Amino acid sequence: MIFKYARGKIMNYPNGQRNNVQQQPSKQGYSNRGMTLEEDINTTNTFYLDTDKAIIHKKPTPIQIVNVHYPKRSAAVITEGYFKQASTTDYNGIYKCRYIDFEAKETKNKTRFPMSNMHEHQIKHMKSIIKHGGISFLIIRFTVYNETYYLPAESLFSFWDYQFDNGRKSIPYDTIKSEGYLIPFHYQARVNYLAVIDKLYF
Amino acid sequence: MIFKYARGKIMNYPNGQRNNVQQQPSKQGYSNRGMTLEEDINTTNTFYLDTDKAIIHKKPTPIQIVNVHYPKRSAAVITEGYFKQASTTDYNGIYKCRYIDFEAKETKNKTRFPMSNMHEHQIKHMKSIIKHGGISFLIIRFTVYNETYYLPAESLFSFWDYQFDNGRKSIPYDTIKSEGYLIPFHYQARVNYLAVIDKLYF
Repeated sequence: MIFKYARGKIMNYPNGQRNNVQQQPSKQGYSNRGMTLEEDINTTNTFYLDTDKAIIHKKPTPIQIVNVHYPKRSAAVITEGYFKQASTTDYNGIYKCRYIDFEAKETKNKTRFPMSNMHEHQIKHMKSIIKHGGISFLIIRFTVYNETYYLPAESLFSFWDYQFDNGRKSIPYDTIKSEGYLIPFHYQARVNYLAVIDKLYF
Repeated sequence: MIFKYARGKIMNYPNGQRNNVQQQPSKQGYSNRGMTLEEDINTTNTFYLDTDKAIIHKKPTPIQIVNVHYPKRSAAVITEGYFKQASTTDYNGIYKCRYIDFEAKETKNKTRFPMSNMHEHQIKHMKSIIKHGGISFLIIRFTVYNETYYLPAESLFSFWDYQFDNGRKSIPYDTIKSEGYLIPFHYQARVNYLAVIDKLYF
């Protein structure tokens, strides 16, 4: 897990010397050992940023701050806060002049992606993004298969809307395999979703 | 200050009836009585969103979470957290297919905008946005004059870079008046910055 924190972090070594943490972890460090989808996407976005390919960030988790303590001579401390539900998606930014906006979810399910992973207001937000000319999609990882898919927002919408007619509250794995795009693994861009965007839009 | 919280909020009236808070506050409610620039921009963005003109949000403040308590049968409570410096700008989104990214600052200064209001990494971020084809700018309010300006990122950069040669660590008010654009006040879009974008880009 060294890679996630590796970028420019300074730490003390046992011999007392301060060194930059190794920027290139050993090859096995790249195998998928307990890395969450979020960690992989953050790593990918950092690589895109460092190579000036795209500017895409994860939005901070919104926190409802209730109490803050201001100690003398040190930083303000939040002593009571609550997690709020995000009103939009988790990631946005710019790539080749286009506005990019997406959500990422992983599931342990083997046969389907349960729609309960998504919220009504996120779908509404994504529909709005498409309408205004942005590129929106969902990244879904099936952890059991270690497969990560790019599902265009348009496919997601049809399943989302369909559930109210039909009652099916999930997207079958096979459908995601056929309507979605397997996201290629790249040595530094572990979830190389821009490769799919290139194929679909450029 | 009713306007800020007015959108769809339900509250108890003295007669015990539940009503939506009046959506149209009295005219004097719109005068600038202690509304911060951030509140005005949030109100403006809500109006843009409600009228489907643009999708622009303030990013949540990043919080470093140190301790979380999980009480039985209630929501997780953050019991220790710290404010982190944002690595980008405060606002981003999409308007007429274009990626929008900006920062907003107010100053009590009468003659200049001190550069200490901006951070190196924000400038770097904004330069990158321009390079990738986005629209980036700074909204500056001079609270003393109650004037709010749109300063294109390109003007900001020249002043930012200039300070290292010249030592001037601020942008004169008169320069902002000439290189920037006074942002018109609109009844519901209190800081109607899209009007300036329309003039400059569309």
